[in-house]
Amino acid sequence: MKFKDTLKDIKTYSAGKPIELVVRDYGVAPENIIKLASNENPHGCSPKVREKISQIVGNMYRYPDDSFFELKEKLSTKFGVKDTNIIIGAGSDQTFEFISRALLEEGDKVLVNRISFAMYDIYAKQEGAVMIKTDTIEHDLDQFKTLYQEHKPKLVYICTPSNPAGDALDKVDVYDFLKTVDPETMVVVDGAYMEYASFKEAKKLIEPKDLIDTFPNCIYTGTFSKAYGLGGMRTGYAIASEEFINSLLKMRPPFNITTLSLAAAVEACNDEEFVTFAIDDCFKEMKRYEDFAKENNFDYIDSYTNFITLMLNDSMNSSEISEALLKKGVIVRDLGSYSMNAIRVTIGTTAENDRFFKIFKEVLGN
Amino acid sequence: MKFKDTLKDIKTYSAGKPIELVVRDYGVAPENIIKLASNENPHGCSPKVREKISQIVGNMYRYPDDSFFELKEKLSTKFGVKDTNIIIGAGSDQTFEFISRALLEEGDKVLVNRISFAMYDIYAKQEGAVMIKTDTIEHDLDQFKTLYQEHKPKLVYICTPSNPAGDALDKVDVYDFLKTVDPETMVVVDGAYMEYASFKEAKKLIEPKDLIDTFPNCIYTGTFSKAYGLGGMRTGYAIASEEFINSLLKMRPPFNITTLSLAAAVEACNDEEFVTFAIDDCFKEMKRYEDFAKENNFDYIDSYTNFITLMLNDSMNSSEISEALLKKGVIVRDLGSYSMNAIRVTIGTTAENDRFFKIFKEVLGN
Repeated sequence: MKFKDTLKDIKTYSAGKPIELVVRDYGVAPENIIKLASNENPHGCSPKVREKISQIVGNMYRYPDDSFFELKEKLSTKFGVKDTNIIIGAGSDQTFEFISRALLEEGDKVLVNRISFAMYDIYAKQEGAVMIKTDTIEHDLDQFKTLYQEHKPKLVYICTPSNPAGDALDKVDVYDFLKTVDPETMVVVDGAYMEYASFKEAKKLIEPKDLIDTFPNCIYTGTFSKAYGLGGMRTGYAIASEEFINSLLKMRPPFNITTLSLAAAVEACNDEEFVTFAIDDCFKEMKRYEDFAKENNFDYIDSYTNFITLMLNDSMNSSEISEALLKKGVIVRDLGSYSMNAIRVTIGTTAENDRFFKIFKEVLGN
Repeated sequence: MKFKDTLKDIKTYSAGKPIELVVRDYGVAPENIIKLASNENPHGCSPKVREKISQIVGNMYRYPDDSFFELKEKLSTKFGVKDTNIIIGAGSDQTFEFISRALLEEGDKVLVNRISFAMYDIYAKQEGAVMIKTDTIEHDLDQFKTLYQEHKPKLVYICTPSNPAGDALDKVDVYDFLKTVDPETMVVVDGAYMEYASFKEAKKLIEPKDLIDTFPNCIYTGTFSKAYGLGGMRTGYAIASEEFINSLLKMRPPFNITTLSLAAAVEACNDEEFVTFAIDDCFKEMKRYEDFAKENNFDYIDSYTNFITLMLNDSMNSSEISEALLKKGVIVRDLGSYSMNAIRVTIGTTAENDRFFKIFKEVLGN
């Protein structure tokens, strides 16, 4: 069977280990496991969402409204855009797939930061595109400018705040870069963690409407997976010009989010208070990680997200440390696969973080 | 912006109208609406599944186990294959997308029945492939043989039982056709409604293990959307050789079904009794549709699924009839878009079917 040649270069995404697997493979009791690996909101989602879903469990047999009318109405009000400016994806992740598939042909170039969301690469490579990368951990827009002029890529991803590093760009700097970009180049601004960044510092906020009005070649993407605490429900969105959205809609499969996901996302939009509470708590707990890092003499990246990237010393190896933590029931993300001697830790609840500090110290032999 | 040329020919899928839309657009009260348009199981899903999901609503913030370990274990036991022979999709629908994207290049040919699941075409066209079609409503394997020899397509879809016609092929005839197919041609046997067909007549049953052992160029696809009553949860699967599955896995996005979908599908496998009850009831009610058609002098296709295709007389127009039914709160599928003067009606509960007969008579002016 002759599959496409482009498949040869594709590595599949390696997801954070689920709790079930640690139970299975490491024999740790479920109650002793804490998962700080996938940037889930440790407070879960809004209680209103849980209540709503409990009420409509009987609807699982019904396909969702494939126009996603109610959800688009909510997002349209929230962001001041038209419903025709919105496409819904199974996570913002799926909107990257739509973009890649609608736009990229073999040999096309895609510009990304060296440390960035792994799916940009995977979706691009599925279309046979070539990745152009900066050489920095945090986003460096001067490098973006230089590489853009040198390679004239068809697509650029700016992930702000950035995953898995945690840094965030100022809006003014992003706009300065965008001014240098040709209107025929598409630029995706991935704001999966934007709610966190803008809470911490207003100057980080990039608003979808302002972005696409100012730069019609841009697409803004957002998600219900992080601040809204619905990672398991796979719902995100992209906001762009009607022309872009119409092209992306051609790649969208019908019913691409579930009936319960649709209801959950709609209900989540009704409880912004929960989101603010969760973000506020996240940054309070983040402070404890920063203090912990300082006390134990290792570096970290100043984070605008719900996770912190701890840069380990040369005496430690991120893969060994991650494995040792895993054996004690603490799941974190080893960034070794990004050629970084670092681990990414999701900010958990107070109790989870207490446990992380305790077990991490044990692993460090302190 | 230069999107791919292949986008020009793609029409997006037109889903069955959801109840919400009929409320919105036609002003019919929700309690007066019956939806018999999308082949959902009118009995919903197993009560055990509903109970399970109610218990784990708090897990919505957690990403699912991306290896889908438990679900693959269930399917592997059910079908006697290895977990490495299975890929999970967001509906079997998504597995067609994986197949198209992993296999098809511009100009490649795909052989399908004239009346078949619309997504085969859409996914193929997204890759720039060319559709070769029979000219019959029901599957005619002699035509498949002739067209196969003439065009040597790279991919063949056999939908048995067939959607949206409802006919089903005998296993022996499918195997006779498969013997004439080159091992380098991939053949997908779409068994979305297989549970219904094999209940009605054992000779219709095609089993995944036997199929892929006998014809390693085949892929079997199945779903939890129909007999298992989980259409809104978007969970299906493909079963094939490990080599095929490994290639398809390269097109699979991480977390492509939700946390609740995964749990629902696992639990659904624990209640086959519910499935048998629902199918048995479906065929009892189907008999009433057949009698109704005879009494009112119009034809129907003998159905091996949970829907029936009613062939209207020349004096009726399927689009007008569908619209008239819609205004009275009855949603069915107009097959006008397939150049058929027919409507497809999902077999509902006894009460729903009573209401359909009553309102359909009103619309016919009887």
